[in-house]
Amino acid sequence: MGIRVSVAGASGYAGGELLRLLAGHPEFDLVAATAHSQAGQRVDAIHPHLTGLDLTFAETTPGRLADADLVFLALPHGQSAAIAAQLPDGVRVVDLGADHRLIDSGSWDRYYGGPHADAWTYGLPELPGQRELIAGSARVASTGCYAATIILALAPLIAAGVAQPADVVVVAASGTSGAGRAAKSHLLASEVMGDLSPYKVGAHQHVPEIKQATGATGLSFTPVLAPIPRGILATVTALPVDGADPRAVLAEAYADAPFVHLLPEGRWPHTAATLGSNSCHLQAGVDVDSGRLIVVSALDNLGKGAAGQAVQNANLMFGLPETTGLSSLGVAP
Amino acid sequence: MGIRVSVAGASGYAGGELLRLLAGHPEFDLVAATAHSQAGQRVDAIHPHLTGLDLTFAETTPGRLADADLVFLALPHGQSAAIAAQLPDGVRVVDLGADHRLIDSGSWDRYYGGPHADAWTYGLPELPGQRELIAGSARVASTGCYAATIILALAPLIAAGVAQPADVVVVAASGTSGAGRAAKSHLLASEVMGDLSPYKVGAHQHVPEIKQATGATGLSFTPVLAPIPRGILATVTALPVDGADPRAVLAEAYADAPFVHLLPEGRWPHTAATLGSNSCHLQAGVDVDSGRLIVVSALDNLGKGAAGQAVQNANLMFGLPETTGLSSLGVAP
Amino acid sequence: MGIRVSVAGASGYAGGELLRLLAGHPEFDLVAATAHSQAGQRVDAIHPHLTGLDLTFAETTPGRLADADLVFLALPHGQSAAIAAQLPDGVRVVDLGADHRLIDSGSWDRYYGGPHADAWTYGLPELPGQRELIAGSARVASTGCYAATIILALAPLIAAGVAQPADVVVVAASGTSGAGRAAKSHLLASEVMGDLSPYKVGAHQHVPEIKQATGATGLSFTPVLAPIPRGILATVTALPVDGADPRAVLAEAYADAPFVHLLPEGRWPHTAATLGSNSCHLQAGVDVDSGRLIVVSALDNLGKGAAGQAVQNANLMFGLPETTGLSSLGVAP
Amino acid sequence: MGIRVSVAGASGYAGGELLRLLAGHPEFDLVAATAHSQAGQRVDAIHPHLTGLDLTFAETTPGRLADADLVFLALPHGQSAAIAAQLPDGVRVVDLGADHRLIDSGSWDRYYGGPHADAWTYGLPELPGQRELIAGSARVASTGCYAATIILALAPLIAAGVAQPADVVVVAASGTSGAGRAAKSHLLASEVMGDLSPYKVGAHQHVPEIKQATGATGLSFTPVLAPIPRGILATVTALPVDGADPRAVLAEAYADAPFVHLLPEGRWPHTAATLGSNSCHLQAGVDVDSGRLIVVSALDNLGKGAAGQAVQNANLMFGLPETTGLSSLGVAP
Repeated sequence: MGIRVSVAGASGYAGGELLRLLAGHPEFDLVAATAHSQAGQRVDAIHPHLTGLDLTFAETTPGRLADADLVFLALPHGQSAAIAAQLPDGVRVVDLGADHRLIDSGSWDRYYGGPHADAWTYGLPELPGQRELIAGSARVASTGCYAATIILALAPLIAAGVAQPADVVVVAASGTSGAGRAAKSHLLASEVMGDLSPYKVGAHQHVPEIKQATGATGLSFTPVLAPIPRGILATVTALPVDGADPRAVLAEAYADAPFVHLLPEGRWPHTAATLGSNSCHLQAGVDVDSGRLIVVSALDNLGKGAAGQAVQNANLMFGLPETTGLSSLGVAP
Repeated sequence: MGIRVSVAGASGYAGGELLRLLAGHPEFDLVAATAHSQAGQRVDAIHPHLTGLDLTFAETTPGRLADADLVFLALPHGQSAAIAAQLPDGVRVVDLGADHRLIDSGSWDRYYGGPHADAWTYGLPELPGQRELIAGSARVASTGCYAATIILALAPLIAAGVAQPADVVVVAASGTSGAGRAAKSHLLASEVMGDLSPYKVGAHQHVPEIKQATGATGLSFTPVLAPIPRGILATVTALPVDGADPRAVLAEAYADAPFVHLLPEGRWPHTAATLGSNSCHLQAGVDVDSGRLIVVSALDNLGKGAAGQAVQNANLMFGLPETTGLSSLGVAP
Repeated sequence: MGIRVSVAGASGYAGGELLRLLAGHPEFDLVAATAHSQAGQRVDAIHPHLTGLDLTFAETTPGRLADADLVFLALPHGQSAAIAAQLPDGVRVVDLGADHRLIDSGSWDRYYGGPHADAWTYGLPELPGQRELIAGSARVASTGCYAATIILALAPLIAAGVAQPADVVVVAASGTSGAGRAAKSHLLASEVMGDLSPYKVGAHQHVPEIKQATGATGLSFTPVLAPIPRGILATVTALPVDGADPRAVLAEAYADAPFVHLLPEGRWPHTAATLGSNSCHLQAGVDVDSGRLIVVSALDNLGKGAAGQAVQNANLMFGLPETTGLSSLGVAP
Repeated sequence: MGIRVSVAGASGYAGGELLRLLAGHPEFDLVAATAHSQAGQRVDAIHPHLTGLDLTFAETTPGRLADADLVFLALPHGQSAAIAAQLPDGVRVVDLGADHRLIDSGSWDRYYGGPHADAWTYGLPELPGQRELIAGSARVASTGCYAATIILALAPLIAAGVAQPADVVVVAASGTSGAGRAAKSHLLASEVMGDLSPYKVGAHQHVPEIKQATGATGLSFTPVLAPIPRGILATVTALPVDGADPRAVLAEAYADAPFVHLLPEGRWPHTAATLGSNSCHLQAGVDVDSGRLIVVSALDNLGKGAAGQAVQNANLMFGLPETTGLSSLGVAP
């Protein structure tokens, strides 16, 4: 018997991707998938792509979840802290929600509201020293999807002193699965297909998370909803500090990161190449006209941006190779 | 060292999917990927989703391919027979093209033209007795993508005598990857997005293959190009012979087939649920108004319709479990 | 002052298209747009593509609507009859809903349910003699979207005796706007993009309408939801009666129809070519293998399938050229 | 007889949109549509959405074009200058290409290359004083599609002194029709659907045009190809000069512009709302975290970004109301 795993919020999109990854994971054995509103239903009635998986949703209760070595919480923001607080210390927990990401309670109040829970180890293994911290933690807060895309592009440049932290400008477009599975009018296919629409302009809740993890001190972030089911493409620009080569910095930062790929010069990242994978593709350059550093970053918001990331963190927490059960290769076209 | 495998035509879409599947296959070791026009290029320059795979395209020559235990031919129709004829008998070959599928040379002349090669063992393991034939063959002609979708829906019903073979009507829509990777105006994104367009109406080259494998004697088949990258949805209707339940027939036919899933009553197949998998989803019913049997079939044209099917056949040819390196689960949403 | 027009249900997709068409109509003056749940809101807050139209939604009441020469009812099926019954005889009414389409109350009960209202003049001007009937009517029931697509393909062939009415098989795919604007999970962009999914297989409510208008006696109809906002593509097949040329029959039937275009031989209809127009494109042939007649029909479900059709009917009711304010040309790519 | 008009390059996407607009224009009479490679073909064989238009492509020769009062040149960049030089002075010309847009030959050399033609009156009527210049010109260079989107967002802010010209950052995504109709592998539907891909990062040829028209002195511009047929969404950010309200500046700048719509506060532009129209939708705000001004701009790249813009310019050149034959309303969903 392997490591026993349960998933809370398994009827959502990130939850469904977790179930898919866990079904192919050689060490983790899925013992419970909970979903409040779908309890009692077969998993493949809600996730038809998981037809062949013989599983029924259970109620999301601490007791049901705790009968495991590892719990993934894939709940709406603000709901995981209450559940997490009732899980025994001996159960390792990876939270895919925002509840335990922010250190600063002022930022939590401004962007989320409600009670502010304590910050857990931040679950982005590619940050310096973070892999070891995660490996030693029983509680890990996995990154947000936009946050992962942008932090991987930006953090090394600020850390190496080649990008100024004060005036970072990011425009990032996301696929619709990032907006969740609740039925809302503006997410109808009729509205989204053929459309590009910005939202939460200058007010997205991932701003403090990105600043906390990168050291950026001023960040203009405009998110855009794009007519793709999965994928985030972030264009990150910052003022240069000196003549340093951003590619060289990124190459060094991710030399040993199995899932972050600095592409060969001349090839820019695009989202479709990362679909279904746990990869993040990066490319960097200097804008000829303005002199700004430009880093483009692409990943699958349900993969490296959510479920894949969470499994990578869990692998580290259990001393497994971080690539276990994950793929660098995308599904395309 | 495992079973040594080479792939011809690896720069196309089916070839790319083969590379992806082989990279995760525990028994097959990819030793050569050939692509005439891309020889010398890195694989990930042509297939960016395979970034992380350290591989360079070689020239497509019999000598280069033959240094392997198993060769997959993913070449345009009409090109594989000449290559295959030069491969040693000891090398097992799976052809994803049409060259060795048709027994009747008149049908070949009418739908394809050019020299007609001999028919190989037909590579659809779910047909009665076919699994064993494939296991004993050194040469297998894998099915066409539309053909696989339609045959899996229809063959058991005609074989069981519950569907009349004389007046079968099929309308099937396919994603664009089925049309290949050559740059053609009508396949441009500007033309395809937002569009549904029929083509080769009543004249598609898979008609004789479907008739040969199912015993249908009259087949009206209308293919439609749909704005999705992958996936085929076929609506297959036939006149009933008697009151037999088509679901019961399909359930029995595929009781032991790991990749063909007759869905629970009330759930109809849809393409997105099969993306990236080797599954075919089926549902059947009787039209209330006309009394016709209706079977709807969905699969991934690059999965069970091409590369996945080919790997499944190869597994059988080498005595491996047919599911080795393949997944029943799709990537969604 | 022109002809005064009001629109009930103006916040939906068909209602929005009516507002767009009426804004460009030289004889009809929009005096009221009603929408129960959006009353008091600006029209462009709900229909951002109508920015520039200075209009506010009113409550949907008979009194509000009746202060006009012409009322369009774009309400959910089952809601227009009650409103219509309260409108004065002197006000002309075009109903885009199903309430007044069916003559047979048994069919109404089976496919819709609820009270069965009397049938009005059927609003498809291209049927023989129908243009004159519509011109003389004060109440017209405009066609359903699938129904219009299929009837235009099929009716002349049965009427001319070249197609057998007994075993008609239709598979038709529709864009998502045909499913309306209510927020439902299965219509989310995440679910629909990249997907083709059949629904109401053998049980769609347009079956009796199609049979009533074409004389078909047996009809197998499978609708498919496609990842496009607008457009219907129908593949209609029927057994031939004799050797008559279906193209010749269609050419004669629509010689004087400004919006029905039989394409030149070799060109098949596709949906994108009809987007935003009031056109229906047709092509016909004989399936080589089965001998079945195949007619493919394409139109914009919100254009000739709903709002455009309704305006065309209204033009006739007011003695205007039927093309007034409508375009044959689509918006592409 | 109205004003006689010919269109060169009528088989492309911008050319097709010109034909559509001209077919509905009450004063312009289309007398010739030329297309080198398609000469002799029916227009609707190449543009199926224009079925109903009885027209055949002619050869693109100065003589054929000059038999008109007005010529639209919708040719690839670098091809219109040679043709234009051979048109008589008495014929008015609107060039949709880049050949006559740039004043600075150094910029032409750097971004386009080849012989640099003289700059014509710049065809963006909404710039201060430009409407009158266009009205008095016999030769007008219509704007580029990205350029129009970005200039309309940025020019008033720099002119009013509320945005700094030195560090403007723009990320803009475009639909595929902006990339033209030539068959290229990376524009295949299989590649584009489900994908977001940046290109010409920091090196797009519209950079000098935008700087010339806005006074920006430093511009970082990253274009992204998006899976929509039409539409551009630009996110334009600039450092503020003082506390001035960017909305107030834009409201004043476009108070009399019939096609530029500053949306009510709280509503952000999105591309689908402008499809098929000649509108540009704008919204502006101040980023809370960084203090940057953010203006989002959306239009239809074939409408206000190309053919609609060209017709608007031509209307002015002939003393017609600038809205003649154009619509503010989009086609949605």
